[in-house]
Amino acid sequence: MRPNRIRELWAAGKPALNCWITLPGTLAAEMLAHQGWDSLTVDLQHGGSDFASMCAMFAAISTTDTVPLMRVAWNTPGEVMRALDAGAYGVICPNIESVEECQRFVGACRYPPDGYRSYGPKRGLLYGGKDYVHHANQTLLAIIQIETLQGLQRVDEIAQVEGLDMLYVGPSDLGLALGREARQNQTDPVVMQAVDKILGAAKKAGLKAGMHCTSAEYAQTMIAKGFDFVTVISDENLLALGAAERAKLG
Amino acid sequence: MRPNRIRELWAAGKPALNCWITLPGTLAAEMLAHQGWDSLTVDLQHGGSDFASMCAMFAAISTTDTVPLMRVAWNTPGEVMRALDAGAYGVICPNIESVEECQRFVGACRYPPDGYRSYGPKRGLLYGGKDYVHHANQTLLAIIQIETLQGLQRVDEIAQVEGLDMLYVGPSDLGLALGREARQNQTDPVVMQAVDKILGAAKKAGLKAGMHCTSAEYAQTMIAKGFDFVTVISDENLLALGAAERAKLG
Amino acid sequence: MRPNRIRELWAAGKPALNCWITLPGTLAAEMLAHQGWDSLTVDLQHGGSDFASMCAMFAAISTTDTVPLMRVAWNTPGEVMRALDAGAYGVICPNIESVEECQRFVGACRYPPDGYRSYGPKRGLLYGGKDYVHHANQTLLAIIQIETLQGLQRVDEIAQVEGLDMLYVGPSDLGLALGREARQNQTDPVVMQAVDKILGAAKKAGLKAGMHCTSAEYAQTMIAKGFDFVTVISDENLLALGAAERAKLG
Amino acid sequence: MRPNRIRELWAAGKPALNCWITLPGTLAAEMLAHQGWDSLTVDLQHGGSDFASMCAMFAAISTTDTVPLMRVAWNTPGEVMRALDAGAYGVICPNIESVEECQRFVGACRYPPDGYRSYGPKRGLLYGGKDYVHHANQTLLAIIQIETLQGLQRVDEIAQVEGLDMLYVGPSDLGLALGREARQNQTDPVVMQAVDKILGAAKKAGLKAGMHCTSAEYAQTMIAKGFDFVTVISDENLLALGAAERAKLG
Amino acid sequence: MRPNRIRELWAAGKPALNCWITLPGTLAAEMLAHQGWDSLTVDLQHGGSDFASMCAMFAAISTTDTVPLMRVAWNTPGEVMRALDAGAYGVICPNIESVEECQRFVGACRYPPDGYRSYGPKRGLLYGGKDYVHHANQTLLAIIQIETLQGLQRVDEIAQVEGLDMLYVGPSDLGLALGREARQNQTDPVVMQAVDKILGAAKKAGLKAGMHCTSAEYAQTMIAKGFDFVTVISDENLLALGAAERAKLG
Amino acid sequence: MRPNRIRELWAAGKPALNCWITLPGTLAAEMLAHQGWDSLTVDLQHGGSDFASMCAMFAAISTTDTVPLMRVAWNTPGEVMRALDAGAYGVICPNIESVEECQRFVGACRYPPDGYRSYGPKRGLLYGGKDYVHHANQTLLAIIQIETLQGLQRVDEIAQVEGLDMLYVGPSDLGLALGREARQNQTDPVVMQAVDKILGAAKKAGLKAGMHCTSAEYAQTMIAKGFDFVTVISDENLLALGAAERAKLG
Repeated sequence: MRPNRIRELWAAGKPALNCWITLPGTLAAEMLAHQGWDSLTVDLQHGGSDFASMCAMFAAISTTDTVPLMRVAWNTPGEVMRALDAGAYGVICPNIESVEECQRFVGACRYPPDGYRSYGPKRGLLYGGKDYVHHANQTLLAIIQIETLQGLQRVDEIAQVEGLDMLYVGPSDLGLALGREARQNQTDPVVMQAVDKILGAAKKAGLKAGMHCTSAEYAQTMIAKGFDFVTVISDENLLALGAAERAKLG
Repeated sequence: MRPNRIRELWAAGKPALNCWITLPGTLAAEMLAHQGWDSLTVDLQHGGSDFASMCAMFAAISTTDTVPLMRVAWNTPGEVMRALDAGAYGVICPNIESVEECQRFVGACRYPPDGYRSYGPKRGLLYGGKDYVHHANQTLLAIIQIETLQGLQRVDEIAQVEGLDMLYVGPSDLGLALGREARQNQTDPVVMQAVDKILGAAKKAGLKAGMHCTSAEYAQTMIAKGFDFVTVISDENLLALGAAERAKLG
Repeated sequence: MRPNRIRELWAAGKPALNCWITLPGTLAAEMLAHQGWDSLTVDLQHGGSDFASMCAMFAAISTTDTVPLMRVAWNTPGEVMRALDAGAYGVICPNIESVEECQRFVGACRYPPDGYRSYGPKRGLLYGGKDYVHHANQTLLAIIQIETLQGLQRVDEIAQVEGLDMLYVGPSDLGLALGREARQNQTDPVVMQAVDKILGAAKKAGLKAGMHCTSAEYAQTMIAKGFDFVTVISDENLLALGAAERAKLG
Repeated sequence: MRPNRIRELWAAGKPALNCWITLPGTLAAEMLAHQGWDSLTVDLQHGGSDFASMCAMFAAISTTDTVPLMRVAWNTPGEVMRALDAGAYGVICPNIESVEECQRFVGACRYPPDGYRSYGPKRGLLYGGKDYVHHANQTLLAIIQIETLQGLQRVDEIAQVEGLDMLYVGPSDLGLALGREARQNQTDPVVMQAVDKILGAAKKAGLKAGMHCTSAEYAQTMIAKGFDFVTVISDENLLALGAAERAKLG
Repeated sequence: MRPNRIRELWAAGKPALNCWITLPGTLAAEMLAHQGWDSLTVDLQHGGSDFASMCAMFAAISTTDTVPLMRVAWNTPGEVMRALDAGAYGVICPNIESVEECQRFVGACRYPPDGYRSYGPKRGLLYGGKDYVHHANQTLLAIIQIETLQGLQRVDEIAQVEGLDMLYVGPSDLGLALGREARQNQTDPVVMQAVDKILGAAKKAGLKAGMHCTSAEYAQTMIAKGFDFVTVISDENLLALGAAERAKLG
Repeated sequence: MRPNRIRELWAAGKPALNCWITLPGTLAAEMLAHQGWDSLTVDLQHGGSDFASMCAMFAAISTTDTVPLMRVAWNTPGEVMRALDAGAYGVICPNIESVEECQRFVGACRYPPDGYRSYGPKRGLLYGGKDYVHHANQTLLAIIQIETLQGLQRVDEIAQVEGLDMLYVGPSDLGLALGREARQNQTDPVVMQAVDKILGAAKKAGLKAGMHCTSAEYAQTMIAKGFDFVTVISDENLLALGAAERAKLG
């Protein structure tokens, strides 16, 4: 089975640099994949893609070595399994608040006996290779987001769930949950304390930690802080740079 | 944040006139939006639209002042949140049968601390404005349908759920639930008694009440009865008028 | 090969009642097809459909006996042939102004030796049957529109083109061409004189004549006048009836 | 209401021959429908179709007498009901492990009082006929898959669920669940023993039994074994035959 | 009819700032439209959009005051007219080499008696208003590109074509035509001499002149040079800035 | 620039084995690409794909080494150039009947000074590499079909057109043109004589020759005859094998 380049980077002690895809479309996905990102994450929670566009975008991304990841809208097994069948090499699940929810998610990512994923990885076989079924459980990444008060409180026990690979921090929801602002690249001490808590819980449990950023500068700080996976920027952020260009012309 | 015209109508003591969209397609949606409806509801339960077509249709509707609403297929938080992120100014959830189910739905419509909606309103920000996060909880409409025996029985307690805005009556399911016909523009006394019960429960709880109709005549009667929101007609009903035209020619 | 019901109606001395499809979408197309129209015309000139949506709509229409027709955007052989391959049982070509243009169009509708249509009728074989190639030239309808001054002037010679089946009148363009209003259901004597000229030319040449209308009343008058094929209404006109419903409510 | 040809075949003591659709697309669906299959199953679990493509494919299939079935991604009522509204004459639900889960699924397939399906069968009415609501509960097929250890253990009680029509065997997941290979056309005695158990449970409960195969030979054996419904081949298997053609050329 | 803001800017002596859309998608289009561009041009020549995506994108753009423009793949009347019907307020036609070609293009943009555009502006009426037909010829922009040796040679006569509004310079093709590099933001004196020739021809003929740039700096220079319309940047250029972000992280 | 594997095979004295794609869809395209074909041809003449689906399919094919080709609906420069921009490494143009038509087509495939292709190869750059513009004219294949009496008559002069790479035989149209059957895998002596004429003309002019077949056996014979490129089978033929499977079951 094709190895997961993110795991390879981690094995080599390097962080993975991710770009976030909010906008559906194969041409944009293929252009982004050619820019050297370690991974691209198609967002089906807050982004505009759906299952059909994601499948075509995964094919477009797979013309390069960039690893295709995705975020599900919610912790629903059918959606998780369909993304993996379509060739996702990792899934991010938002809003996990308990061990039980985490197990439900991780189980959907793993074939028996490790989980309850159903067999039929159509694009998975094309992208991963014919021995997919034998290595998928060890290759694909199961990633969750801790972003609520409940989740924060139970982060240590949640992090113990067998088969979980990474805790991913979404600073906007974390900010809202803590009664602060819903924003990226947070510096608010209340939010940053929670970020540290999640990072610490991940490390303590032997997991990787990921952070959603919107600039290289901030991402650099987060890598320095110990994060193993950083979203550096999103397609949406990049489009917004157009406004700056326009503004220069008055 | 752009105000919700439906709330403005209500504040002015006027009912909102809604048209129902069963058929996917941006051109039809934009045409309907230009006919002066207060709101258009894209139906993802019994209609043919899906998330992708709905997003494009919301953009088409947003070329006018008509308020974009939608109905989810079922009470699933991921689906509700994605519709709001796409710019829905209200969501109708079918088949609510208990306080718990209602809370699960309403919570998905509200940011913390009022609910558990996750932050990332991509089209929401474009349509609503940059201060979206601060006013969304007060602006967007959370609407449920009471259409089963269980729901009817518990309608008064369900109506007490904090944050709920409206009870919407779907007469077909109500008819079936009561062992009567699954039809619109009901006159069956058994069904009408249930309609009155829902209307009464809404009013008692300080909520608005909505009714699904398929003619201006019937909608007029329902407004007179006290309904604050009426679906007057659907695109599907309108197409069926074609048969009448054809019939005139023998 | 499945016979063309329009030709059967004509053989029985009856006019064909057509409904016009401006809006893309399979569900709407299937709903319209179930209303008893003799034919449905998917408009790729002024309508919102494209090749992909038309193909799916033809399948939806073909769940009934309603005959699938289409109008091309312009007189381009590739577009004409692709529509026929997709199962169109007739093509309307706008804006024909000369014998040469008409031959170019009709030739694209006919296999050699009658024309230069290329072979490969994928959906055509499914819809028409395995002997499609042997009967297609006699079954499919080649229809043109005369709607410019040049076209009007040469209508008699154009009508002589071998293999042509019908002249179809689009009153809006005709109105504009004559310096009058671009409107349907014309009564303007200048335009009606041109309509009569086209109708007369068709009859003289042994062709059928078709008229684009937007109400049963007007269509009835046109049938009485001698037209063999009338578009009674369009999906777009039907949606516009929604405005009337809304207006009744103030 | 249009009768369900699969039930008619069963009434005549004949098995139903099904073809499996992994690939989205109306043209392929219509081509397959013209090959004489009793039914075509659009797979929304492991296949590439989504709701939008399935709707168009159901229309394409409905140009013939082939019965449209589908498999949902997971046991979610919204998805089940939407498929039926779109005209599915049967739904296969994967991974049922308890009586409760089975009831949740079957209930979503049946209108009150038999279940809790919501009314609004848009394409269902077109395909099934105007009396759809009165016969749907007896016409549409509710089919589940037993493919886990839990499911196997409880197969007899699950098979007793009122309104259930068939147990369908997916040999890949069954193989994985039993610690064997995830493959089709199984001969592994451990897996075959489980297959026999499911078949037996179905028969004992008066249900039909279905089997997923990938060749006519294997399907023949399964019919001989007592299966009432066999998937003979999938579109994906058929495409893979291309590799054999290529291989002949070196 | 809704006025063309580009014409209004010109009347006020200001240049119009355009952003170029290479990537299909309504969400990206709506995001770009909210950044304050005077116009957005959907490219159907070298971009990934097609008619269907363009129609939805025009609706998305029309939620703002940004003017929707498009570039056709080639000088084909059907394509030009369909874009205008969909609500384009201007069309750019590439590769014009003669007066005749230019007339063919401009004629497709104008209703009789000024041209031969066919009537049926479905979205045009929604976007432009009910009096569209009476003002369209004076409102919509007909823009051509001079980018070949033949075109350059005849630029003065081409610029005389009645109804033409602007000459738009595509520096890549111009570079190739002159045996230089196919690049944007040209400084090559051979190419710049040709640019000056086109600019001069436009001014002499009383036309506007437009320039395709890929940075605010270069666009500023071109405005200073006398260009009335500048494409400042494209969505594709903006995405490429992602590579720079990534590079900062090593 | 990424070399064209078909040219490499030819340089090595080997024929290229092509598979034909009639059905739109990225998953099927990616599955076929993984079967070891030298090239896959997306057919926009008689197949169901359009520009949008073709672009996504090219990305899917480009996850492998299989060369993406396409056939245009007709000899229209805009369509040819758009296919190349989307990453086609060769275009087949049907129905060429004269030197002039052939030049028009070949010129659309080549940048100046060899032709008049316009610059902007969006996916071309991603697939081919950054030096695309400098090697495209020598890398991409310009292929025409001779399939009419006129074409046959002038085949020798047409084959002399500078820049042309291959003559491709479509036996169905050839059959019709000669008054024989429109079928594949022809053995009719009248048709085979014409096939030999085209093959001979190609060889005499130093061009390659290609043949459309529907079985490995026939393709083998054509290779033996001297053809350099054979279409062995189509996705449509492969699906039709399903009927054979079904037939085995009675």
